[in-house]
Amino acid sequence: MTCVSRSLSYNYVMLITKASGEKVEFDRKIYEASLQRVGLTVEEARQIGNEIYQDLHSEISTEKILEKTQKVLKRKNQSIAIKYGLKKAIMRLGPAGYYFEKYMSAVLSAYGYKTKYNQFIYGRCVQHEVDIIAERDREKFMIECKYHTNPGRKSDLKVALYTYARFLDLKDKHNFKEPVLMTNTLCTTEAIRYAKCMGMKIIGWHYPARGESLEHYIESKKLYPVSILGSVNNQINKKFRDGNLFLALDLLKYTPKRLAKKFHLKEHQAVRLIKEAQILQS
Amino acid sequence: MTCVSRSLSYNYVMLITKASGEKVEFDRKIYEASLQRVGLTVEEARQIGNEIYQDLHSEISTEKILEKTQKVLKRKNQSIAIKYGLKKAIMRLGPAGYYFEKYMSAVLSAYGYKTKYNQFIYGRCVQHEVDIIAERDREKFMIECKYHTNPGRKSDLKVALYTYARFLDLKDKHNFKEPVLMTNTLCTTEAIRYAKCMGMKIIGWHYPARGESLEHYIESKKLYPVSILGSVNNQINKKFRDGNLFLALDLLKYTPKRLAKKFHLKEHQAVRLIKEAQILQS
Repeated sequence: MTCVSRSLSYNYVMLITKASGEKVEFDRKIYEASLQRVGLTVEEARQIGNEIYQDLHSEISTEKILEKTQKVLKRKNQSIAIKYGLKKAIMRLGPAGYYFEKYMSAVLSAYGYKTKYNQFIYGRCVQHEVDIIAERDREKFMIECKYHTNPGRKSDLKVALYTYARFLDLKDKHNFKEPVLMTNTLCTTEAIRYAKCMGMKIIGWHYPARGESLEHYIESKKLYPVSILGSVNNQINKKFRDGNLFLALDLLKYTPKRLAKKFHLKEHQAVRLIKEAQILQS
Repeated sequence: MTCVSRSLSYNYVMLITKASGEKVEFDRKIYEASLQRVGLTVEEARQIGNEIYQDLHSEISTEKILEKTQKVLKRKNQSIAIKYGLKKAIMRLGPAGYYFEKYMSAVLSAYGYKTKYNQFIYGRCVQHEVDIIAERDREKFMIECKYHTNPGRKSDLKVALYTYARFLDLKDKHNFKEPVLMTNTLCTTEAIRYAKCMGMKIIGWHYPARGESLEHYIESKKLYPVSILGSVNNQINKKFRDGNLFLALDLLKYTPKRLAKKFHLKEHQAVRLIKEAQILQS
């Protein structure tokens, strides 16, 4: 290969900067798949892929690509534009991991699990704080939640190890079938390998691939967090959190008047929030 | 009990502020025991106890008490005054836990263990980074080091759990007899209870009580870190760290000239350092 052709082929690689700071090649396939997941057809996803790709520049952040994509989507379909902000909306649940646990409990309840969160229970050796206990069809699961407010942080091997050791100490006394690690970010390769080897389930961002990832659980029943709605500013977000309302879906149970009263909102805010929740469910 | 006597008895309680921020009663017994441990007689410890106690004021920090004590000790016995700074000297090994591992390896070597630090080895499921592997009399130990630069941080249950899970994954392949958790601070009650229940050894600050705590291992063979010496400023500390010299004891292997040359010190610095190391061993 000559110097000229090497430099030419180099120009065809578009490097982007992930939240972790890692620089990777922009993968059109993964990008377009994420658009299909929120409801675009293959053709629509390809069109937006083209549009965005022409607008990229070297080492652009994934955060910036998300923003650009949401802008383009907003012009085409408001519901899909909102859904595309899921990862960021989950980050807005924080800062305390406690809210992620409550949100995940609400998600699991929608799948028919009976859940309890933040339970202090005794194992063979010591007392543990278990984030969620989920029960369905007489099977009981010990769920450890690992919540990161920094999208670049991965749940690592240590998290997988202590989750498993906790399960070992608890399982006989409480008849747990399986340990589950739920996280809003990625997991390291070692954490995934260990979990597979030990028969521990991981439900994380983009993991596992086929229909069991965190976003799949949320998206397939439209269990979006309320923080995904455009009108939910920090103040309103806090009001919902304090009032234990975590699912956007739950806004539809209220009339604007009742919503405004219960969460101390202005009525025009309540009207807009309910309207956005309706768009999201459409 | 009348109000008067209640208020009187209240005046006899001297609250001090621990590094963790916790406020506890000043315990003369524990305080005097720490003085005996570095070499004072019961009577001498009691005398200094009296002197310091009169000088205390409400909610004084343990840091401040340490300073006051070192001042008093310096007047009486320089060697003992230096030794009294052990906990702080270990904190100065940092910031990376890596240096604590190297120092602990040096300490274990002095007890006849063959040690390797920072080893990447495969278990049944995954590869692990093991801080220290220590071997003696055909028995092999997996040692996890937990180093805190904040003296108030305790090693908690999660640390004990992942250490044990790591041991489980490694033990058969590498014939480890026991997992050991070594830490430069305290452990939480739950971490200690779990370790006892699982047959895992913890060696930490002030734990276990009888002759097997971290400070005991160090003090009974005078294996003080070089950072304990008064002349070791941050710059010199870094030079020794970079040159893998961790024990004050090891300074005695050098002539001032050779020490100065090897670590790029001025000769008068080298002379003073060696002198301080001699005082410490006396």
